[in-house]
Amino acid sequence: MDEKLRKVTHVENIRYDKAAEELVILDQTLLPNEEKFLRLTTAEEMYNAIKLLRVRGAPAIGICAAYSLYSLARTIQEDTSEGFLTKLKEYAAYLNSSRPTAVNLSWAIREMLKTAKENLSLPRAELLEVLYRKAADIHADDIAKCTAISEYGLTVVKDGDGILTHCNAGPLATSRYGTALGPILLGTERGMKFRVFSDETRPLLQGARLTSYELQRAGVDVTLICDNMASIVMKNGWVQACFVGCDRVAANGDTANKIGTSGVAILARHYGIPFYVLGPTSTIDMDCPDGAHIPIEERDPDEIKNMWYEKPMALQSVKCYNPAFDVTDHTLISGIITEKGICRAPYTESLKALFDNKK
Amino acid sequence: MDEKLRKVTHVENIRYDKAAEELVILDQTLLPNEEKFLRLTTAEEMYNAIKLLRVRGAPAIGICAAYSLYSLARTIQEDTSEGFLTKLKEYAAYLNSSRPTAVNLSWAIREMLKTAKENLSLPRAELLEVLYRKAADIHADDIAKCTAISEYGLTVVKDGDGILTHCNAGPLATSRYGTALGPILLGTERGMKFRVFSDETRPLLQGARLTSYELQRAGVDVTLICDNMASIVMKNGWVQACFVGCDRVAANGDTANKIGTSGVAILARHYGIPFYVLGPTSTIDMDCPDGAHIPIEERDPDEIKNMWYEKPMALQSVKCYNPAFDVTDHTLISGIITEKGICRAPYTESLKALFDNKK
Repeated sequence: MDEKLRKVTHVENIRYDKAAEELVILDQTLLPNEEKFLRLTTAEEMYNAIKLLRVRGAPAIGICAAYSLYSLARTIQEDTSEGFLTKLKEYAAYLNSSRPTAVNLSWAIREMLKTAKENLSLPRAELLEVLYRKAADIHADDIAKCTAISEYGLTVVKDGDGILTHCNAGPLATSRYGTALGPILLGTERGMKFRVFSDETRPLLQGARLTSYELQRAGVDVTLICDNMASIVMKNGWVQACFVGCDRVAANGDTANKIGTSGVAILARHYGIPFYVLGPTSTIDMDCPDGAHIPIEERDPDEIKNMWYEKPMALQSVKCYNPAFDVTDHTLISGIITEKGICRAPYTESLKALFDNKK
Repeated sequence: MDEKLRKVTHVENIRYDKAAEELVILDQTLLPNEEKFLRLTTAEEMYNAIKLLRVRGAPAIGICAAYSLYSLARTIQEDTSEGFLTKLKEYAAYLNSSRPTAVNLSWAIREMLKTAKENLSLPRAELLEVLYRKAADIHADDIAKCTAISEYGLTVVKDGDGILTHCNAGPLATSRYGTALGPILLGTERGMKFRVFSDETRPLLQGARLTSYELQRAGVDVTLICDNMASIVMKNGWVQACFVGCDRVAANGDTANKIGTSGVAILARHYGIPFYVLGPTSTIDMDCPDGAHIPIEERDPDEIKNMWYEKPMALQSVKCYNPAFDVTDHTLISGIITEKGICRAPYTESLKALFDNKK
């Protein structure tokens, strides 16, 4: 097989079937054993798809929420504009409560509500069409952003590098290339070779189930490790850069991402390895001054003790602490790679500049 | 329940049944769901008990190997002393190959062989009795050592402290109090209260299955976490000390212990938390100059991808790297707590002094 011609397999995680007017998602909780697509029709199904991580990854959650709101808007029976908006806001608040940490979720929902308000005077059919276009734009925009992030990310690594990643910030978590996996997949399409180490990412094993699956399918040299093996892998000299995604970046650069990310950053600092956060600017929350202001979702202890296992892996009476995220201090981050370029310290200035330029 | 009267439940992991002349071990791979005892009679059963982690923990492996060699010595048919010793050495080499990293294994086997050589002129029945006494002494000695380690360990923490531990260095891994868990269990018997965080310790989940089980049974306030949660737990200010066991300590203080231990040490350093290694002096290998000379056992990828799980947790074609141990650099260690006292940096001197004093 000619490496130059290798085509990366893009998994379609979210699709709006306009003919059937149905939102279709790949149930990521079943991977890698089963590729099952779900058609979401009720608000509860949409809420649960996000809550139970059937769709996951900050950008993907945003895309899913946008299509969900459009899909739910179609079901609203109220004749008046006020009644329509009230009901749409109820759905928005409900969906927004499914994952408290992901800023893309609330961002996408705000965008959809804003679009609805601005076009509230249109006939209902036209208003719905505008909402659909907005959701589809959010989706298309994410593909464009992921591609740009991938291009910028490629500038900080070179052919043959070892790259360690935590959790899953690939096509399944976003669209097309992904964020943290974007440079790897884009570089692979161009014939570059990377050696990737994928943390399995307990408790939900996104690295084992999703990242190594995506990379293996794309023909990337990937090695799966347990989270606690990152230290020896770095010590062995096998890692030249760490790439991780992000769920929320505060104005000072502090970054919330999957639990364990801060540990990877501390190890990378110890071993002198650059540590990069990759994500779209929609993940940056300039209203959040620092990591201390990011709420950390705590999840069910069963995810640690029972989920996935044939038998209970601990006494049922044992307490668990199961935070879904942790905050990586901005001082540990070598760069935040966005679709608009790479921000470096001091982040308070470089992140602000992203949004100033936008105007 | 009067806290002062609380008695810690000691699980009997290894027992030599002298009446039946059989070695009995608790199959730790079945915990916490099942407490099943195995009677080991053949060399293969003994080799597999160690290899497959039915008995585990450096001191426990040593005790098991000593009783195993005695038990196998009883089966030797050769009449001559030379024939007996040759056969015993064969068994010794076979058992010794079951786990390459554990220094206690080779230490206990050497002690048994030395005892055999020194008493080779005795009538066979007497020789066997001497070998039994040697194995029983190694066992009794470990109980005494664990108690002494526990006493020294208690001097570096205070009532109410939070303690993080990795893997399992409790009674199941040793005898009676254990090493890393020793100060916690001894202090609990005396009415002290600790808040313990137990890393689940992937891939074999010794923390989930064994440590949290032992501590919960003993009435200790234990919280189970995934390995990658150690960073946030430390950041939250919940940890005042880290206690870990050791499989081999080099002459310069570099310490091999369960995979992930070096990561915990790096996190502890980052957050300014003292990190202690607890183990008997038999774990210290003065012939090994530093960590680079410690062989690191690599284990089956199935432990990461399939073991424990209902379904495969990764594509079967995905590569895994599965080192059983890593080496914690001596510069990250606040103290090495032995039955003879606490060694501090510079370890080259303090560890040497332990053995000089012994003479």
